[in-house]
Amino acid sequence: VKPVPVIDVALVHHPVRDRRGETITTAINNVDVHDIARSCRTYGVRVFHVVTPITAQQAIAERILVHWREGEGATRLPERGDALDRVRIAASIEDVVAGMTAELGERPTTIVTSAAPPTDRVWLGHSDAAARLRIEGVTLLVLGNGHGLTDDVMQGADEVLAPIVGVDGYNHLSVRAAAAILLDRLLRRDA
Amino acid sequence: VKPVPVIDVALVHHPVRDRRGETITTAINNVDVHDIARSCRTYGVRVFHVVTPITAQQAIAERILVHWREGEGATRLPERGDALDRVRIAASIEDVVAGMTAELGERPTTIVTSAAPPTDRVWLGHSDAAARLRIEGVTLLVLGNGHGLTDDVMQGADEVLAPIVGVDGYNHLSVRAAAAILLDRLLRRDA
Repeated sequence: VKPVPVIDVALVHHPVRDRRGETITTAINNVDVHDIARSCRTYGVRVFHVVTPITAQQAIAERILVHWREGEGATRLPERGDALDRVRIAASIEDVVAGMTAELGERPTTIVTSAAPPTDRVWLGHSDAAARLRIEGVTLLVLGNGHGLTDDVMQGADEVLAPIVGVDGYNHLSVRAAAAILLDRLLRRDA
Repeated sequence: VKPVPVIDVALVHHPVRDRRGETITTAINNVDVHDIARSCRTYGVRVFHVVTPITAQQAIAERILVHWREGEGATRLPERGDALDRVRIAASIEDVVAGMTAELGERPTTIVTSAAPPTDRVWLGHSDAAARLRIEGVTLLVLGNGHGLTDDVMQGADEVLAPIVGVDGYNHLSVRAAAAILLDRLLRRDA
């Protein structure tokens, strides 16, 4: 029996856009994995999925995880292993969705994020998303590396999350900072 | 005449604690500088002060800034230069406070942050801090690198900010993530 609600996070390295909007695969960044794993651990995210189709990149990510879970890192900084324990590597968003469905008995609602979401879809506000996540279901929050998720991924998702709005339209947070802010907005317990 | 309210952020590399509580000086981390500069830019922070007494470290930080403000980086990713434009290097927290006082005509209220603030002081709640920052004064929000600011720095500050509380007591966010979350809690404009 799954605990309810369940939220997983995915950081996608393909398909994402480069600066000019072309579809690319970005390299896994060690700092992204550590920072977002720690933020996920802080806010009670079940699993943080690092998504890349490149097997050599998957192997690098696995080595990082083993170092911190079982190797020298686990001895030196045990709370880091505690965060990285909930990281899993996956080849695609579809694999993550299928795995969650098999494991939890329910297809996750996918919520995609962007600094500039498509304007032809209704955006899910952060307060509405937080209210929903407090009470029900299985959710996958999808973050894009590089210059963000492709249009196909955005259009194929169940929900499009509203962007983080700064004071004057500057929208170039790091994905690490955006992940931290969104998890806080959606999952914080204290007032 | 200064605009009101004004908020600056400082990331302190000395004096901070290591894992065992000893006072150390940490090295400047390029990712910290970029991420926190981008978060500061997003939320309208006036200046992000990178604090280290080590002159060789100050020189490294200056080189990073020049690269992104004027060098190749400025051409390739102009919005990064836009964020790094508000970064300044300082030798000490005292120098930052003195500089702000001279420049703005008012001594800043210092608010220190910690994942585990001293229990013998009253903590400033995030909502109270946000309300205060909306209306008045000059404020310096102080973040510690390594395992956090020393007791002397915490005790010498005007205010001690309440910590970010996760779901079960895990309190090992990266300083980049903590900075992003605190700036969002204190300075976000949208509801």
